[in-house]
Amino acid sequence: MYRPQIKVLDCTVRDGGLINNHDFDHRFVRDVFQAVSAAGVDYMEMGYKNSKDLFSPKEYGLWKFCDDEEIKKIIDGIETETKISIMVDVGRVELDDIRPKAESPVDMIRVASYVKDIDKAIYMVNHFAEKGYETTINVMAISVDQGPELDEALHQIEEESKVQVVYIVDSFGALYQEPVEYLVKRFKTILKSREVGFHGHNAQQLAFSNTIEAIIHDANYLDATVYGIGRGSGNCPLELLIGFLKNPKFDIRPLLDLISNDFIPLREKIEWGYIIPYAISGMLNVHPKAAMTLRKTDKKESYRAFFENLMNPDLE
Amino acid sequence: MYRPQIKVLDCTVRDGGLINNHDFDHRFVRDVFQAVSAAGVDYMEMGYKNSKDLFSPKEYGLWKFCDDEEIKKIIDGIETETKISIMVDVGRVELDDIRPKAESPVDMIRVASYVKDIDKAIYMVNHFAEKGYETTINVMAISVDQGPELDEALHQIEEESKVQVVYIVDSFGALYQEPVEYLVKRFKTILKSREVGFHGHNAQQLAFSNTIEAIIHDANYLDATVYGIGRGSGNCPLELLIGFLKNPKFDIRPLLDLISNDFIPLREKIEWGYIIPYAISGMLNVHPKAAMTLRKTDKKESYRAFFENLMNPDLE
Repeated sequence: MYRPQIKVLDCTVRDGGLINNHDFDHRFVRDVFQAVSAAGVDYMEMGYKNSKDLFSPKEYGLWKFCDDEEIKKIIDGIETETKISIMVDVGRVELDDIRPKAESPVDMIRVASYVKDIDKAIYMVNHFAEKGYETTINVMAISVDQGPELDEALHQIEEESKVQVVYIVDSFGALYQEPVEYLVKRFKTILKSREVGFHGHNAQQLAFSNTIEAIIHDANYLDATVYGIGRGSGNCPLELLIGFLKNPKFDIRPLLDLISNDFIPLREKIEWGYIIPYAISGMLNVHPKAAMTLRKTDKKESYRAFFENLMNPDLE
Repeated sequence: MYRPQIKVLDCTVRDGGLINNHDFDHRFVRDVFQAVSAAGVDYMEMGYKNSKDLFSPKEYGLWKFCDDEEIKKIIDGIETETKISIMVDVGRVELDDIRPKAESPVDMIRVASYVKDIDKAIYMVNHFAEKGYETTINVMAISVDQGPELDEALHQIEEESKVQVVYIVDSFGALYQEPVEYLVKRFKTILKSREVGFHGHNAQQLAFSNTIEAIIHDANYLDATVYGIGRGSGNCPLELLIGFLKNPKFDIRPLLDLISNDFIPLREKIEWGYIIPYAISGMLNVHPKAAMTLRKTDKKESYRAFFENLMNPDLE
């Protein structure tokens, strides 16, 4: 019934941190790491590795920068088989900030890239691979970037890169099962020697079902977050994914405790989930940034006007 | 791109009423009818037709009984092509309470039935059909009733009943896309001269994607509720379904206004949506009644204990 190749990656702190400038305290991040470890999750992504020249540590929390020393404080003394991941954006990281794997608690570095930046992403993953890290390339905004450039980028990755996994990232939450099937097959056809991953967004309550669809078509790397936390509508809820997978190594119970103790109170303070302006963004296949802006105004529940503006942007 | 045979049925008041004993006031129900009509939705289900000998009108709201006169007050003066539906449960309705169609504002009567009660359901739909109504049979709890009795029941419906539509009802929110595909194909193979419908529950955030899956495999009757309102985790959100369907007759905007004005305030008063104990019920393929009970106690966020009890009911 289960596929041993499946790997689940928790990106609670990394994607959830987009709501609060990555300002989670050590206790919270340690709670997540402890629960995710006990649940048998394969990877936990601690945050982004950003250049401190581009982003000020005064304005952002620790998990925007993921210093090795901070990660060590989180994992110290916790027995675990969960590997540590960090994410970097093309153009936002100093490659010299990354120490060789042998000197770092990090196991995997994931490079988030648009199709147009794939040459830079390949350069970066090859650099990280030479330093000893596992690597992935996460192809963002896939729902608006399916022209022939995508095939060219995938061929380049297959031929020129040392990356292990290439993710389909539904940044806008616009996909449903038919396009997911199509994309996983398209990726696998070209990336013959790599694994395919899937990262969903939950604008239309489809992140979990799209992840299931990706599993059905043999994607083996699956992203999720506890209680679906994440920018805007959030992500595939980790507890649903763990409840669905049959691999005996997974245990949902530590995640249930974590949600009871940490995430129910947190949801009172910061917002994510099924929220109509994000659903509209997903339906219309656009970036959620307009919805995020709306939610900070006193028109946050004026859905029709928001819809009309997105449909007819020239009227604004 | 679109399939003209598709019919969308709004069951906001009927399924949402299970949260509040069907105690919605006329203004609210009229708001829903007006919006659903303007959105081009094909049917609106006003509630249940229950025997007043079995349920006291002192304890339940009007939409537990759906007197024709009350329905007339809702629809009076509203220009609409939306037809009116009511639901009856096997064994809970006095057949003599149903007047001939020519004297009633109701267009369709839907009979909710377990597989074991299908003989009674067939008797009822034939009775209603003779009185002039469109009819459906909604086969409940399908995720735990897929033995050979199901095929027998479907054959009986095909051979003995006058029903137009047979619904697959995922009462526990336990299905995902593979079982939905399987069930729609199984229903359509036997019910050669009937339409197949789908009614999802959202325990695992799969109601919308399961509805899409049913569409893909040619189910044409689709249930949904505004903002996903419904008992426990709720239902397929109507606004997502209307946003997805390409039929030009549909217009999402009246639904957006309705959510802004009526459903955001209502959600502050009554609970539905993604709530972990309901998610657990869906994962474990059990009725949500234990979760409903839990949510009324001070242990409502004690998810692990709830999970352990459902997994090992003998320990209770």
